[in-house]
Amino acid sequence: MNKNTFAVTPPMGWNSYDYYDTTVTEADVKRNADYMAEHLAAFGWEYVVVDIQWYAHGAGSRRDTYQYIPFSELEMDDHARLFPDPERFPSSAGGAGFKPLADYVHDRGLKFGIHIMRGIPRNAAHAHMPVLGTALTADDIADPSSICRWNPDMYGVRDTAAGQAYYDSVFELYASWGVDYVKCDDICNTNAYPHDPYSGRHEIEMIAAAIQKCGRPIVLSLSPGPALIEQAWHYETYANLWRITDDLWDQWPLVKDMFRRCELWQRHVSVGCFPDCDMLPIGSLGKGFGHPWTCNLTRDEQRTMLTLWCLFGSPLMIGSELPLMDDFTVSLLTNRAVLSMLTPDAKPHQIRRSEEEAVWEAVNEKTGEHFLALFNLSDEEREVEQDMDVLTDILLTDNFETDIYGIDFWTGERILCMDGKPRKRLAPHGCVVCRVI
Amino acid sequence: MNKNTFAVTPPMGWNSYDYYDTTVTEADVKRNADYMAEHLAAFGWEYVVVDIQWYAHGAGSRRDTYQYIPFSELEMDDHARLFPDPERFPSSAGGAGFKPLADYVHDRGLKFGIHIMRGIPRNAAHAHMPVLGTALTADDIADPSSICRWNPDMYGVRDTAAGQAYYDSVFELYASWGVDYVKCDDICNTNAYPHDPYSGRHEIEMIAAAIQKCGRPIVLSLSPGPALIEQAWHYETYANLWRITDDLWDQWPLVKDMFRRCELWQRHVSVGCFPDCDMLPIGSLGKGFGHPWTCNLTRDEQRTMLTLWCLFGSPLMIGSELPLMDDFTVSLLTNRAVLSMLTPDAKPHQIRRSEEEAVWEAVNEKTGEHFLALFNLSDEEREVEQDMDVLTDILLTDNFETDIYGIDFWTGERILCMDGKPRKRLAPHGCVVCRVI
Amino acid sequence: MNKNTFAVTPPMGWNSYDYYDTTVTEADVKRNADYMAEHLAAFGWEYVVVDIQWYAHGAGSRRDTYQYIPFSELEMDDHARLFPDPERFPSSAGGAGFKPLADYVHDRGLKFGIHIMRGIPRNAAHAHMPVLGTALTADDIADPSSICRWNPDMYGVRDTAAGQAYYDSVFELYASWGVDYVKCDDICNTNAYPHDPYSGRHEIEMIAAAIQKCGRPIVLSLSPGPALIEQAWHYETYANLWRITDDLWDQWPLVKDMFRRCELWQRHVSVGCFPDCDMLPIGSLGKGFGHPWTCNLTRDEQRTMLTLWCLFGSPLMIGSELPLMDDFTVSLLTNRAVLSMLTPDAKPHQIRRSEEEAVWEAVNEKTGEHFLALFNLSDEEREVEQDMDVLTDILLTDNFETDIYGIDFWTGERILCMDGKPRKRLAPHGCVVCRVI
Amino acid sequence: MNKNTFAVTPPMGWNSYDYYDTTVTEADVKRNADYMAEHLAAFGWEYVVVDIQWYAHGAGSRRDTYQYIPFSELEMDDHARLFPDPERFPSSAGGAGFKPLADYVHDRGLKFGIHIMRGIPRNAAHAHMPVLGTALTADDIADPSSICRWNPDMYGVRDTAAGQAYYDSVFELYASWGVDYVKCDDICNTNAYPHDPYSGRHEIEMIAAAIQKCGRPIVLSLSPGPALIEQAWHYETYANLWRITDDLWDQWPLVKDMFRRCELWQRHVSVGCFPDCDMLPIGSLGKGFGHPWTCNLTRDEQRTMLTLWCLFGSPLMIGSELPLMDDFTVSLLTNRAVLSMLTPDAKPHQIRRSEEEAVWEAVNEKTGEHFLALFNLSDEEREVEQDMDVLTDILLTDNFETDIYGIDFWTGERILCMDGKPRKRLAPHGCVVCRVI
Repeated sequence: MNKNTFAVTPPMGWNSYDYYDTTVTEADVKRNADYMAEHLAAFGWEYVVVDIQWYAHGAGSRRDTYQYIPFSELEMDDHARLFPDPERFPSSAGGAGFKPLADYVHDRGLKFGIHIMRGIPRNAAHAHMPVLGTALTADDIADPSSICRWNPDMYGVRDTAAGQAYYDSVFELYASWGVDYVKCDDICNTNAYPHDPYSGRHEIEMIAAAIQKCGRPIVLSLSPGPALIEQAWHYETYANLWRITDDLWDQWPLVKDMFRRCELWQRHVSVGCFPDCDMLPIGSLGKGFGHPWTCNLTRDEQRTMLTLWCLFGSPLMIGSELPLMDDFTVSLLTNRAVLSMLTPDAKPHQIRRSEEEAVWEAVNEKTGEHFLALFNLSDEEREVEQDMDVLTDILLTDNFETDIYGIDFWTGERILCMDGKPRKRLAPHGCVVCRVI
Repeated sequence: MNKNTFAVTPPMGWNSYDYYDTTVTEADVKRNADYMAEHLAAFGWEYVVVDIQWYAHGAGSRRDTYQYIPFSELEMDDHARLFPDPERFPSSAGGAGFKPLADYVHDRGLKFGIHIMRGIPRNAAHAHMPVLGTALTADDIADPSSICRWNPDMYGVRDTAAGQAYYDSVFELYASWGVDYVKCDDICNTNAYPHDPYSGRHEIEMIAAAIQKCGRPIVLSLSPGPALIEQAWHYETYANLWRITDDLWDQWPLVKDMFRRCELWQRHVSVGCFPDCDMLPIGSLGKGFGHPWTCNLTRDEQRTMLTLWCLFGSPLMIGSELPLMDDFTVSLLTNRAVLSMLTPDAKPHQIRRSEEEAVWEAVNEKTGEHFLALFNLSDEEREVEQDMDVLTDILLTDNFETDIYGIDFWTGERILCMDGKPRKRLAPHGCVVCRVI
Repeated sequence: MNKNTFAVTPPMGWNSYDYYDTTVTEADVKRNADYMAEHLAAFGWEYVVVDIQWYAHGAGSRRDTYQYIPFSELEMDDHARLFPDPERFPSSAGGAGFKPLADYVHDRGLKFGIHIMRGIPRNAAHAHMPVLGTALTADDIADPSSICRWNPDMYGVRDTAAGQAYYDSVFELYASWGVDYVKCDDICNTNAYPHDPYSGRHEIEMIAAAIQKCGRPIVLSLSPGPALIEQAWHYETYANLWRITDDLWDQWPLVKDMFRRCELWQRHVSVGCFPDCDMLPIGSLGKGFGHPWTCNLTRDEQRTMLTLWCLFGSPLMIGSELPLMDDFTVSLLTNRAVLSMLTPDAKPHQIRRSEEEAVWEAVNEKTGEHFLALFNLSDEEREVEQDMDVLTDILLTDNFETDIYGIDFWTGERILCMDGKPRKRLAPHGCVVCRVI
Repeated sequence: MNKNTFAVTPPMGWNSYDYYDTTVTEADVKRNADYMAEHLAAFGWEYVVVDIQWYAHGAGSRRDTYQYIPFSELEMDDHARLFPDPERFPSSAGGAGFKPLADYVHDRGLKFGIHIMRGIPRNAAHAHMPVLGTALTADDIADPSSICRWNPDMYGVRDTAAGQAYYDSVFELYASWGVDYVKCDDICNTNAYPHDPYSGRHEIEMIAAAIQKCGRPIVLSLSPGPALIEQAWHYETYANLWRITDDLWDQWPLVKDMFRRCELWQRHVSVGCFPDCDMLPIGSLGKGFGHPWTCNLTRDEQRTMLTLWCLFGSPLMIGSELPLMDDFTVSLLTNRAVLSMLTPDAKPHQIRRSEEEAVWEAVNEKTGEHFLALFNLSDEEREVEQDMDVLTDILLTDNFETDIYGIDFWTGERILCMDGKPRKRLAPHGCVVCRVI
């Protein structure tokens, strides 16, 4: 299997983390899947992803002290393979695992994804559990010096045949459940090791090999960010997505910083290979964190975020509880013009960037479409224009001598062009984006 | 002017440094230009580049102590603009500058390039020389805290209008001479400042602006390396070439390390934008260093170097004294099949790399040609093969079921293909490269 | 209790590590204690220290793969407190712990020490064992993100009242056994955290507090090195010894490097506060490592080591199996003149140091004795002399106009003094040391 | 000469920088010297130090743009030795240099000091001026790659015999003028080279050697800070003072941070060796900076500063214009009790330190005096007490069972002692300090 065929375009979907933290249940997942099938699928949204600690008993029950309760019980089989917590995922009981829930999602025409942590459960290593397909036990393949900085569940897996056998057994299980997408955490940037933030390199390779062996085209997404630009080739060779930022929340400085990160990664968007700007923290958020809130970004900021993500070619994962979304939030996710930029065929290119402004373009190599976006990154209203004759223009042949440059994808307004320069007065943190007429 | 039109394909030429160090003369340049016009131009070679300190009186005269004599006299006009040392470049006397020599080169159908250091001469700052087009003097625009670690000639230029005026005046002069190519040094990686190796950022922008204003399409090459991958967008936006390595000499470990560097930069080769693997240290070298020698790389290593440079899409600058080249060296530079890979249309892609082997491919997006190269990086003879079904294959449609995979560009031998895997027994540090049949 | 009264002079003793690694047994300890009592005690040697993993079942049994077997069984009581492995320490059975062995050592007029790792057993955290004197369990006080890089036994202890209660319970137990000396490991430099090598800071304070509460003057020794010079005040405030080097073995480069380290720490030797140059790897070594050997240092190198350690004021811990020592090795440990320098009253002072030579002096503030040592650090025989009039001389009043400067402590030879300069021809890596006459 | 006899106790004096920046004149120096002789000398104040750029023509004349005008004229003799600017120091004209001013200061029973920059004037190198006592010229000994980050006057001097000859010639000149104290800048921490902040190491040694040769006991003070603790031995061996902080100004966070720095250096105060807390920014400040102001520290903060500096044993250099000092400022400088702590015989010792409090003690080894200071580092009023039985007490024999602990040096109030604990209610950033009764 060529892994670049697993996700030809940037994956679009929903992820349980921003709203549920560790507490998501089967009913929650189904509710969001239902909503997606009914309201969003027609626009390309298809993945339903269960995020962290679906296997942990009592997850979230001591949230005032711990996000992840250390040394607590994790649901697993006799071979150290994690299973869903049957309290929260009743259909998984009796060894069914996520198969029933995956079937539910599949029945609605959608795809099913799960989050995992790099490694093998610490509990399994201390209990010396057998590793399927080997004569060894978990303590033989667990590396006691390889841990996650922020989650206590796992030990890293050694780079040995038995270690590979463990990952093989895990992905064979996931494939049997019908998992389509795995978001593997503590592996893209192993930040417990600032001097060696790519210490999970061999585990990326082992997981990629396990996916090949399992026979199911499981999309592989790596977290957390920021990904290491000097490892770009390695990410591209073994994974489909890799996070290029720390956790992105609904704060303007984090969104603004993505312009810098997208500059860095713009040449690395290609079929099956997607630098990942992280989830869209829009709509209703944070219930599992103990204090639900509504997205703190302004509408302009949210449009700016969607515009950059789509023009750049990032995967799109909705953080909001779907059924709670208001009309504005839905409008962000169902703008066909904006979403039309979301393809690796459209090569993104930053034209310029300062603290106050950014200008990006993208050219779809197959359709010939040329997209342009002007961003006001400053805190004041601002007129942004772009001289299309500058040396940075990648389009050598365009002619912008008309008065109208294009129609803004968000407002439908005309973007005037003076002296060959598209120009627009933009609200603070606002943007305009169009297809060149 | 769009700077990406200045060098649509990777520049090919000759550079005086590897043979002459700082001592090259007008006669030397002409001799090499003559040779190039007669023997190499038909294969695409066209640039003749005069490297460092053509302006320094007595350059090389104290070579046992200094490569660059500190605080010595530099030839310059009344506006702090450097001129050729008339001792070594007689035709430059009387204010002619490099115009006569550039004319000579142009008359042979070739292009003329020079090396410069970032900044303004220290002597000019201490002498308070006037800056053309301004009411200020050199001490106003020279930054006394911005120096080069390894060359004492210049101070960095401040990011001011007067600083820009100085660079404008310099490039106006070069343009009037007919300079086609400028290799600007101490700017790609300002290694005097390990904590801020991109301290010359504003000077790159100022030089790019000066080129725009001068009206002549001067190719801009930045040195020294290693370039900073996190600044890739900036290099691509303002320059045509940037060095991705420290000085590359004729030692195998340096050549081998280029495989790592090419992995890092492979997505950044495009029209007008070329990561630069540095000069080809082949043939006769080192006379100006006081101890002439012949390239210490084996023939296999030299072929490997040429293969990687061409497949990757690096600029090619010959370091050898051209008239002294033997037949083997000439054969490296006149292999039309190998040189056919040297275009940004052929997208390079590392398939895999270890301490022992590397496999690269390139696909020409316009012609559809598919190139494959197998490298033996180990110190032993070795059979290298490549399974074309692996997940890293970017070609989704090829069919390699034939017995013959291709014809080696260097030897004309057939590369056998077993079980869909091209395979070849390779000498230590050797390679094979072919177009897929 | 004032901890500076626990070890007024640098501790002298024997440590099991260099010979036994993790495998030392009760019989081994007794044999060495017997030897010390009979042959060395008269010269000031008094501590008998059992080093790492006395609590680990099967320690050393998989030495080809692991120095410390991960996730294996550790002997402990119901409150997560480690006890000796009864297989290797039979007298500890039935809850006796190290009391019988400590009694044995005490009966011979010696003192008893043990090694511990910072933290609480990982096994205890995963088993949720109760912490004595609290309502909490081990998983509440263990920090899952605080581990040792090179040993898998423990988790760090959180900086909480319950964490303190655990350390209190541990030291109450050790005190009840009669432990006089604790070498605590993975705490002086927590090298798993290169960005935060003093992450065990609070645990040092907790252990010091636990010692205060236990009522027994237990000497506290911190490992591993290199200690952090910027934390010198903290070490001095809470501990008696701290390692200023990585593990020191019988290799000249390691010994030579101690001259640099002693330069760094020379002002930090005081009553109860001893920068620790690590064990003396002399005589018979390495049985527990699977390949016993004899000290690889030359006799000159060994004398140089002893001279530096004593003049500097380092603790002295013999690494050799005592009964196997030959006469030369014994002579190193029983030279009363050399040992007379070993007191914090004798302030050490490096006069000069280069790659080839070092000169140190020490002045005993109480007795007025003035010691001088000349070291040949080069690989050639060399005449070393010292001009006593130089600016670096801390002695303002001495008069060296006599012909004889002193009598070498090792050979009894006179050290001639010419023009006020003591001078000696020294073997490679050799030294001379004397009391000024 | 033993350099430790040059300054047996911490130097006390006045420095022109905090008030005059680069603009101080001969009349200014005399006025302050007069004041010191009349009002402060009786309390131990004796040094009058002329700070930076006394040799620069027009110093301060472009203060809005430059603190130090680059590439401007520096007064020097024919051998590249700097002389005072005759405009500002009229008595220096005709080759007299600072001799007349030094005589003036000496006539008042005081000592005379000057500031210098490491190196040789850049102008001299570019002008190829001869070096006294050699056949070489300034360009031969100036290192073009060794500069200061913040001042453009000098190049570093190469580590050669001719380089030494230059420094010898300079200090011979200073000695002939009667200079008693040299504050050498850009040498203690060469912060232009963050990767090699001790790049001036050889110049420290050369200057120390030049002082030895000049025959005059010139106190050597090194700047700027922070000094490197790992080079402590080197500072102690070659210099008398070294700055342990960046420039200290009249801001509480900077003063508070000195507690941390004093902790680091407390073991390094000894006869002739003084870690330097920098000038006292009290009274009238900043005229030369273009906006004169009065010290922004509260009275409590100023007392805290003086208390720490004196107890620690730091040199004391007054930053204020002396004749403008008010009574409070004078009272800080004339408190005999506080100043009695200022001797290397009184060994400073930090007992504890947190964000809120610090406690220091010092014991004079010769007189037996025991000083104690309690500091409130918090922003609230606070009762600070000290349990004298804690493990950190270096005094083993004291008995504090009396009710009165001591008399505060600043207020004359009694410090009560309850349960053996001295205790005092302190204002924010305030302190109390006493001699134990």
